[in-house]
Amino acid sequence: MNELLAALVRTAGADHVLTAPEDMAPFLTDWRGRYHGAALAVVKPSTTAQVAEVVSACAQAGVPIVPQGGNTGLCGGATPLADGRAVVLGLSRLDRIRALDADNDTLCVDAGCTLAAVQQAAAAAGRLFPLALASEGSCLIGGNLSTNAGGVQVLRYGNARELVLGLEVVLPDGRVWNGLRGLRKDNTGYDLKQLFIGAEGTLGVITAAVLKLFPAIRSRATAWVAVPDPRAAVRLLGLLRGDCGERVSAFEIVGRSALELVLKHIPSARNPFSQPARWAVLVELSDAAADIGLETMLQDVLSLAAEQGLVEDAVIAASLAQAQALWTLRESISEAQRIEGLSIKHDIAVPVSRIPEFLERAGAALRAVWPGVRIVAFGHIGDGNLHFNLSRPAAEDNAVFIERTPEANRIVHDLVATLGGSISAEHGLGQLKRDEILRYKSVVELDMMRAIKQAFDPRGLMNPGKLLDTERPGAGTDPDAWMT
Amino acid sequence: MNELLAALVRTAGADHVLTAPEDMAPFLTDWRGRYHGAALAVVKPSTTAQVAEVVSACAQAGVPIVPQGGNTGLCGGATPLADGRAVVLGLSRLDRIRALDADNDTLCVDAGCTLAAVQQAAAAAGRLFPLALASEGSCLIGGNLSTNAGGVQVLRYGNARELVLGLEVVLPDGRVWNGLRGLRKDNTGYDLKQLFIGAEGTLGVITAAVLKLFPAIRSRATAWVAVPDPRAAVRLLGLLRGDCGERVSAFEIVGRSALELVLKHIPSARNPFSQPARWAVLVELSDAAADIGLETMLQDVLSLAAEQGLVEDAVIAASLAQAQALWTLRESISEAQRIEGLSIKHDIAVPVSRIPEFLERAGAALRAVWPGVRIVAFGHIGDGNLHFNLSRPAAEDNAVFIERTPEANRIVHDLVATLGGSISAEHGLGQLKRDEILRYKSVVELDMMRAIKQAFDPRGLMNPGKLLDTERPGAGTDPDAWMT
Repeated sequence: MNELLAALVRTAGADHVLTAPEDMAPFLTDWRGRYHGAALAVVKPSTTAQVAEVVSACAQAGVPIVPQGGNTGLCGGATPLADGRAVVLGLSRLDRIRALDADNDTLCVDAGCTLAAVQQAAAAAGRLFPLALASEGSCLIGGNLSTNAGGVQVLRYGNARELVLGLEVVLPDGRVWNGLRGLRKDNTGYDLKQLFIGAEGTLGVITAAVLKLFPAIRSRATAWVAVPDPRAAVRLLGLLRGDCGERVSAFEIVGRSALELVLKHIPSARNPFSQPARWAVLVELSDAAADIGLETMLQDVLSLAAEQGLVEDAVIAASLAQAQALWTLRESISEAQRIEGLSIKHDIAVPVSRIPEFLERAGAALRAVWPGVRIVAFGHIGDGNLHFNLSRPAAEDNAVFIERTPEANRIVHDLVATLGGSISAEHGLGQLKRDEILRYKSVVELDMMRAIKQAFDPRGLMNPGKLLDTERPGAGTDPDAWMT
Repeated sequence: MNELLAALVRTAGADHVLTAPEDMAPFLTDWRGRYHGAALAVVKPSTTAQVAEVVSACAQAGVPIVPQGGNTGLCGGATPLADGRAVVLGLSRLDRIRALDADNDTLCVDAGCTLAAVQQAAAAAGRLFPLALASEGSCLIGGNLSTNAGGVQVLRYGNARELVLGLEVVLPDGRVWNGLRGLRKDNTGYDLKQLFIGAEGTLGVITAAVLKLFPAIRSRATAWVAVPDPRAAVRLLGLLRGDCGERVSAFEIVGRSALELVLKHIPSARNPFSQPARWAVLVELSDAAADIGLETMLQDVLSLAAEQGLVEDAVIAASLAQAQALWTLRESISEAQRIEGLSIKHDIAVPVSRIPEFLERAGAALRAVWPGVRIVAFGHIGDGNLHFNLSRPAAEDNAVFIERTPEANRIVHDLVATLGGSISAEHGLGQLKRDEILRYKSVVELDMMRAIKQAFDPRGLMNPGKLLDTERPGAGTDPDAWMT
């Protein structure tokens, strides 16, 4: 091991190889404090060549590697296991904006650029990079790609994997794959880049990417809409898409209990209606064209929807400040839940058409076995993706509540599977769902994934214990941290 | 072999197992007549279960399989090798539209549906399936996905691979992978579907797919624009994208020599200007919204571009018939080339920003070694994809012309590689470019692709001799057919 550490120091410099417990601590736990791992060292190279040297040295020593971006993940995918055998590979020093090609609408960046830095580089050239997340100031683009991040603009622009044209990857044997092509069309063999996107660092280390840019947005219209039920929300989405096309850029649902938590705990939150709607939808239209009359377009569709009984009330923001106030209602839900207390969270997707059925059946099944449980449902209904969370019943003890997590997961995830859905829509598997997923994937699908893992990383050195690797015990977990 | 044939007959029925030379003939050559292969039999199952039985029986007998859709490919990917060892698996009887989910904007179809049938099913539900190709009446969607087809709407909607949410695939061992999920978000492991898309049948047989639908188009504006040079065309594209956003749905360039061939050979073609422009661009804006003023929007951008010297002349179609007449100028180029005589064709892509440099350098290099050669350049410049073809000089013999193909390919493809491009933008590798591509892929990339092939099809039974498999001799080729 001393030999390996010496090699890492030669590569990255002594300042960037951390071994003291207090130096390593921030890298050994996730930001919510749920997972606590251990490591031989944390190494922070600054170039692709250095990453390749680090991976190569670890491969020679048979030491596992845990790639880590901004450490903002929600599933423990970047936290090393408790066995302390691995080296954590921090990517934050790979932070160059390599090239912006405005005529090609592409941006080539190091994996360690923050998402915000990527957005800013695009904006400086009058372009849009549409990936947007709550953690955008601290998450790194390499992590966004490794976890195929989602967010609120997926409806229009797709997930992270749809925003990538090319990748540079250090393979488990230390070789570098230069796939940094900025091409819209390339039919010369298997699509390798999509294998690494969403692979959570189990097949290699993404060190750079060529990203797609889009026209900057110059018009926007935002509305808060009360609908009678999720079925009406789905039909409203259909009307909007039919009349407004792809300029429907956000369609977020907020259940009454979620809104009530926001109004209770977030001082700046204001309900635009006199009563919290049983179900509200945040709608946003956006367009690259200026002065295209989006408010009128939105008003027309909402009036039509009201005539059809799909809309009970609606307010269209008359200013940027009003639009921001509406977004606050949606974006403060997680924070309000945290203040309220313990939650059991589910990040699920079903076909958009099955959302109403999911909400009805999941709610009924949970209430049948768990009287008093509060369901806090909200999310990206336009993508079929709900954050379907359970809040502790007032009378119940924290420990009792947490103990029921597996039972609640089973009810929710089994229903998701019945409806053809996914138990991890946007947060990934990491350590959190690596065991749970085995119940829902077919043998054929698991075999294919394991064959790919075997082909790329036969020694199992890349981020062991994550994604589908259930052979190793995970990091230690902290039940108290489940309240955040 | 008799045992295998008996098994195929038991599965598909005697009527659907062809062994007589005259019955097999249409399946053993590509539609242009370039490649001539041989086969043990042609089998045409009608369900996924039957496909699985066929693949399983062939696997047990160690007999290779050549999946074939509408047999409209341009690279010989669906033509069996000359060794006659394989069974051709025709997919045309898997032709059911399985399910349309309007609220989810998805369509589930058998692989053997024609692209036109898929488009029609979407249109019947008031939706758009945007993939559009010249061969749409006869090509099959399974083939479109296996070759990651492109076409004229990629600029707005992406290639075939971007239009897929889920797949059903029969694996080389005969097992069925049911990955028919209709989800916009699913972060539960490796993205398996993208491996099969564009794999040209070398990893498995696609038997069904869940496709994305889009809002129907209700407004359209079309213009034919004379620009001074390709550099101006690229800058015009930038202005259009900036002002009109994603509603720029086609941006096709047509060089003067291409237009002159159309005007010479296609009786219905009319040049909208008094002289053929040195370079013309066909622009189309489209929108799901009705009466959104697209003509005005297009006029405004063209006026601005004219002020900047980017546009020499322009005509905006005043009717559907006029728009169709402009599209005829673009879509008749291949036909006009065929009538004119022999061509050496290149289907290349470079970053959009490098298109002008590519045209200048490729033209200069070719003319330096080949005085009198005529360059017919046109294509999807908005995607960085050009069809860069050479027409036989008037004085030259056919045989002499064809003999120079490798030399011309070398000049064009080496330049493409220098500019970070692709030697097969949308037509694939098949047999045509399987050897050529080895010059341009890195060892690392080839190793990864071979590792995937090895993981999925270790015995090499799926479509041997195609894509990257250079170990086997190809089908026989017919030089006379190179003129089409």
